Amino acid sequence: MQIAFALYPAFTALDIVGPFNVLAYGPDVDAVFVAESLEPLSADVGALRMLPGATFEQCPAPDVVVVPGGPGSRRIAELGSLVEWLRRVHPGTQYTTSVCTGAFALAAAGILDGRRATTHWASHDRLADYGTIPVDERVVFDGKVVTGAGVSAGIDMALTLAGVLWGDEVAQSIQLGNEYDPQPPYSAGSPRTAPPHIVHSIRQVVGA
Amino acid sequence: MQIAFALYPAFTALDIVGPFNVLAYGPDVDAVFVAESLEPLSADVGALRMLPGATFEQCPAPDVVVVPGGPGSRRIAELGSLVEWLRRVHPGTQYTTSVCTGAFALAAAGILDGRRATTHWASHDRLADYGTIPVDERVVFDGKVVTGAGVSAGIDMALTLAGVLWGDEVAQSIQLGNEYDPQPPYSAGSPRTAPPHIVHSIRQVVGA
Repeated sequence: MQIAFALYPAFTALDIVGPFNVLAYGPDVDAVFVAESLEPLSADVGALRMLPGATFEQCPAPDVVVVPGGPGSRRIAELGSLVEWLRRVHPGTQYTTSVCTGAFALAAAGILDGRRATTHWASHDRLADYGTIPVDERVVFDGKVVTGAGVSAGIDMALTLAGVLWGDEVAQSIQLGNEYDPQPPYSAGSPRTAPPHIVHSIRQVVGA
Repeated sequence: MQIAFALYPAFTALDIVGPFNVLAYGPDVDAVFVAESLEPLSADVGALRMLPGATFEQCPAPDVVVVPGGPGSRRIAELGSLVEWLRRVHPGTQYTTSVCTGAFALAAAGILDGRRATTHWASHDRLADYGTIPVDERVVFDGKVVTGAGVSAGIDMALTLAGVLWGDEVAQSIQLGNEYDPQPPYSAGSPRTAPPHIVHSIRQVVGA
C-alpha cells in the first residue's frame, strides 16, 4: 500500500511527521514524501528541512494521502500544484486525509464539499466558507475522507486510521512502539481548557 | 538561545520533530539541526529524509541539546561523532536532553553517570549497564540533564522543559498552538496498559 505524505513550503513539521511515525510502520507500507519538485522544503520554523522522494507527477495513484497544515488557511487553499494533485488522485484513494489546516487544501480541491470535517481550532469557522460542515472533534471520518484537528491531532488521526486499515492489534502495536501514553504537563491543549487570555492571544497569531 | 537538534543515520523521526515542534516556537530560539556532515539523513523508516543545517563542528556551544533515539540502544551508544560532540558541548549547555534511546548516546558520553534517567520502555533495563539509574517515568529531570521515555514522550519532555525555560504561560501557549489535547483511540501506549501479547512482541522487535 502506497501512503503519500504531502509537503509544501512552510508546512508544520509535526503535522506530517506524527502521522508518518504511525502509518509508515504499518505492514507492507510504501511511504513516500511528495511535493511539487524534489527540492528541499523548509517547515514553518525554517530550520527544519525535508527532502521529498517524489514529485506530485511521479505519484499518480497513492492508496492513502496525508496533507499537513501550516500557517494561513487561505494560503494553504491556494497551493495550486497540491490542490490540483489532490483533485487528480482523490478518486482513486482508499483514504484522503489531512491534519490541521491541511483541510483547506482538501476543501479547495472540492473534496470536503458537503462533508463533515475538522481543522485547527483557531481556523475552524473558516471551513464553512468552502461548503464544509465544521465538526468540533479531534478526528472526523466522513466516508473515505479523514480530517484531524490541530498539529498533534495527526497522531490520533493516524492511529485511528491504522486501526481501520489493519485492525486494532496492529494499531495498538504501533502505539506501544511509539510509547504513546501522553502525559502533558499542562491542560492547555484545547480552547476549552486553556486560560482564556492564552486562547485569545493564540487565536490572533494562528487563526489567520 | 541556540537549541541544537541532533541527527544521525536511522534516527526516529518523531523523537526529534516532537521536541522541535515545541521548543522551536519558544521566544528568540535559534533552532539548528546538527549532524556529522551536511549530507541528508534518512530516518529509521527510510522514506523520511532531513537536511542538517550545521555539522557538529559548526555547533560548538549550544544552549540546549536534544538527542533523538533510534533502533538499537547499543548502536546509538556507538555513534562516535555524536558521542564525542556531546562530551565537548555538555559542560556548556543549560540543558542536555534525550528522547527514547537517545539516552544511550548521553550514557556513552558519560553524561548519565550516577544520574536518574529514562528511555524507551523496552530498553529500560539496559541503562543500568552504563552506571545510570533507570527511572520508570515519562520525563526525568536530574540537574540539567533531562530524559524522555519512548518516541512520543519527547513532546511531554519538551513542554515540561519549555515551562522551566520560559515559564508556564509560554509553554501553555505552545501546547495550545499545537492543539496538544491527546485522545489516543486505544490505551495501549504503555506496557502497563497494552495487551500482554502485544507487549511481548514489541519487546522482541524494539528492545534490541
